[in-house]
Amino acid sequence: MSDKRLINELDSSSADFRQRLDALIAWEPSQDEAVERTVAGILREVRARGDEAVLEYTNRFDRMQAHSMAELELGHEALEAALAWLQDEDRQALEAAAARVRAFHERQRGESWSYVEADGTRLGQRINAIERVGLYVPGGKAAYPSSVLMNAIPAKVAGVPELVMVVPTPDGVRNPMVLAAAAIAGVNRVFTIGGAQAVGALAYGTASVPKVDKIVGPGNSYVAEAKRRVFGTVGIDMIAGPSEILVLADGSGDPDWIAMDLFSQAEHDELAQSILLCPDPVFIGRVRDAIARLLPQMPRRDVIAASLAGRGALVRVRDMEEACALASDIAPEHLEIIAAEPSRWADRIRHAGAMFLGPWSSEALGDYCAGPNHVLPTMRTARFSSPLGVYDFQKRSSIIEVSRAGAQTLGRIASRLAHGEGLQAHARAAEMRLDPSGTEP
Amino acid sequence: MSDKRLINELDSSSADFRQRLDALIAWEPSQDEAVERTVAGILREVRARGDEAVLEYTNRFDRMQAHSMAELELGHEALEAALAWLQDEDRQALEAAAARVRAFHERQRGESWSYVEADGTRLGQRINAIERVGLYVPGGKAAYPSSVLMNAIPAKVAGVPELVMVVPTPDGVRNPMVLAAAAIAGVNRVFTIGGAQAVGALAYGTASVPKVDKIVGPGNSYVAEAKRRVFGTVGIDMIAGPSEILVLADGSGDPDWIAMDLFSQAEHDELAQSILLCPDPVFIGRVRDAIARLLPQMPRRDVIAASLAGRGALVRVRDMEEACALASDIAPEHLEIIAAEPSRWADRIRHAGAMFLGPWSSEALGDYCAGPNHVLPTMRTARFSSPLGVYDFQKRSSIIEVSRAGAQTLGRIASRLAHGEGLQAHARAAEMRLDPSGTEP
Repeated sequence: MSDKRLINELDSSSADFRQRLDALIAWEPSQDEAVERTVAGILREVRARGDEAVLEYTNRFDRMQAHSMAELELGHEALEAALAWLQDEDRQALEAAAARVRAFHERQRGESWSYVEADGTRLGQRINAIERVGLYVPGGKAAYPSSVLMNAIPAKVAGVPELVMVVPTPDGVRNPMVLAAAAIAGVNRVFTIGGAQAVGALAYGTASVPKVDKIVGPGNSYVAEAKRRVFGTVGIDMIAGPSEILVLADGSGDPDWIAMDLFSQAEHDELAQSILLCPDPVFIGRVRDAIARLLPQMPRRDVIAASLAGRGALVRVRDMEEACALASDIAPEHLEIIAAEPSRWADRIRHAGAMFLGPWSSEALGDYCAGPNHVLPTMRTARFSSPLGVYDFQKRSSIIEVSRAGAQTLGRIASRLAHGEGLQAHARAAEMRLDPSGTEP
Repeated sequence: MSDKRLINELDSSSADFRQRLDALIAWEPSQDEAVERTVAGILREVRARGDEAVLEYTNRFDRMQAHSMAELELGHEALEAALAWLQDEDRQALEAAAARVRAFHERQRGESWSYVEADGTRLGQRINAIERVGLYVPGGKAAYPSSVLMNAIPAKVAGVPELVMVVPTPDGVRNPMVLAAAAIAGVNRVFTIGGAQAVGALAYGTASVPKVDKIVGPGNSYVAEAKRRVFGTVGIDMIAGPSEILVLADGSGDPDWIAMDLFSQAEHDELAQSILLCPDPVFIGRVRDAIARLLPQMPRRDVIAASLAGRGALVRVRDMEEACALASDIAPEHLEIIAAEPSRWADRIRHAGAMFLGPWSSEALGDYCAGPNHVLPTMRTARFSSPLGVYDFQKRSSIIEVSRAGAQTLGRIASRLAHGEGLQAHARAAEMRLDPSGTEP
């Protein structure tokens, strides 16, 4: 591609289209051996030496001078102070966002159920909350209060009794918006630690940091590798790739709005991906012009420009049907449908993390306050996974209460199948419960 | 422990109890570097050379002489022939089990929902099935038709259109019960391939084997490592550890039944774990006697004896309350409560894969035909994960359709928070949708 081009341009009717598109959307999470070794070492130390190791790494990596882990825990009053410190408008915005996120997620709460069969056998599924969850929050420039709300609120809606947040404070600098969001979301404990050492502390537990059952939240490559390694000891959420938006436009929207929606993805990261699919070449030209005109005004123009030139694209498609087929195949994290009949096209999309329908549904509204979660499957994983939700903080247990009569019917089936599999103790356990008379009671 | 002891015995009131219990339940999945290297090589070859590599590995590892991948696909008629070959009693047992599993899982199907707010904004969650799922079925002695039912039926109930099964046939030997179970469960395609090469073929796709979105099913250490490596490219289910049963008994049950239930877990594998918690020392003695008396009659007595001596235990507890607390902490795959009031104790258990209540609810019935899934979280992962279910084959997309009025309210909140996070394009995207008049329409 030319280095003067603002954004890649593709045409679905050209011979090399599929090849170019595949190259554009391809993404392999890098596995860096140096990161792997470093993280393995840190986790080993934290597991063996607990607080002592966490303290050492925190002082070293975050340039802190803490003498005990107690200095690295923020009490409830520190969170309340952060909340009090906020400007009224910020606090109101955070609280309004939290209320909307809570209202949406309350509809996701699963409920236990059971049913009794004719012979008195009761079967069911009990749903309850995970007991203790760790929430990783990045420090520094990528510290987003909205991310605290989006991770913490579903956990609390699920009924998680104890939510333990870790957030590094490099050089001792705290982010009051993040702490205020933690207070609003109902986080129970906060430690100012980060990196692989924080993940290790949560996974294995230390004298000060309680061992959790699951760890969620975004982080850098060390945090991601640490989560990958402790998976199994604890649960983890998905490990996210760069953020993505795919806009399907029939040509009826405002090109400026679409350009800005593409920017709002691109400004996250040079590796973020913003793609427009549109059958109307004139409209594509207007979006191109809008990009060229609006980009210089953006404070984060360098990041946006790098993202658009590297991984962004304006794609001319034959028609909206083809656009829908491509969108399903790409399975984007965010999908905007800016068209006269958005629902008509939405029905044809099989895979997307979140779908934003119509011109008013800017992705930015979903990122902050529409209600649904902004933690979404990236890297085409929407083919098989879901937005973060209440269901990620609940787990199910099957309930099996067989009646005496049920044991007769089920026992005969189980015995037959167990013998077929050569598992005679299984068969005998079933047969012992059969009535000696051989007749069903 | 003495080498003459049939099973470990612990007492919760002894000083070293917790230490001994922790040692007994400790389980670290081994990470074998030789396995990792071998699997990485196989996956690389399958990805690069497709069918050719799959064919080579299959001929080598399974001692086959296939000349093309076409020879390694079983058509629908092969499955129907396996079904026809079955004895009537086996077929009836398989079909009865399948019907019960299907009926239970139908209650797990998630439904899409949405709601419209006062200002016309619509929010919702769309649920649909994963498009193509791969099912790994082990070959040889660990080939269990019940496992085919338990993995395939939830996928079909979820509405997965294409379910692709792989099952190795070492030396060309097919297991007709497994193929019959595939026919009953509605499996769409079957390839007689296995190992890491089968996992690679499903994850990356080849000319013959379709690329799937998720791979489920048990396998040996090579299969487990391959699944771990392709995770992200495709979804995977949990990687299971050895099977476990924990029996809570108040002393009211039949010691022979309990002994056999402990055996039915132990007969799976020398590493399987069978533990009894009981406050009544006399009853524990009767279970110990039953074990000694019944064990010599069992065809799989060597496996059972090794499992009980190595990882099994009879634990005397102070009371049932303590038993429940220990059970929650252990978070067993299978939990039997054989007591006068099983529900009373079940309510105190926070974590278990499946709970079997009352004397008639032998775990063996759940393994085959009660209805709930027999694929359950092992290695204490019931603290944060669930039985395999329909929900593992469905995924969710958020729906956000903001009205013009909604964009005014949400836009102000989003703009404020986005500026706070330094994401100006997000803020601008929201602000562009605000009415210029500044009043809400």
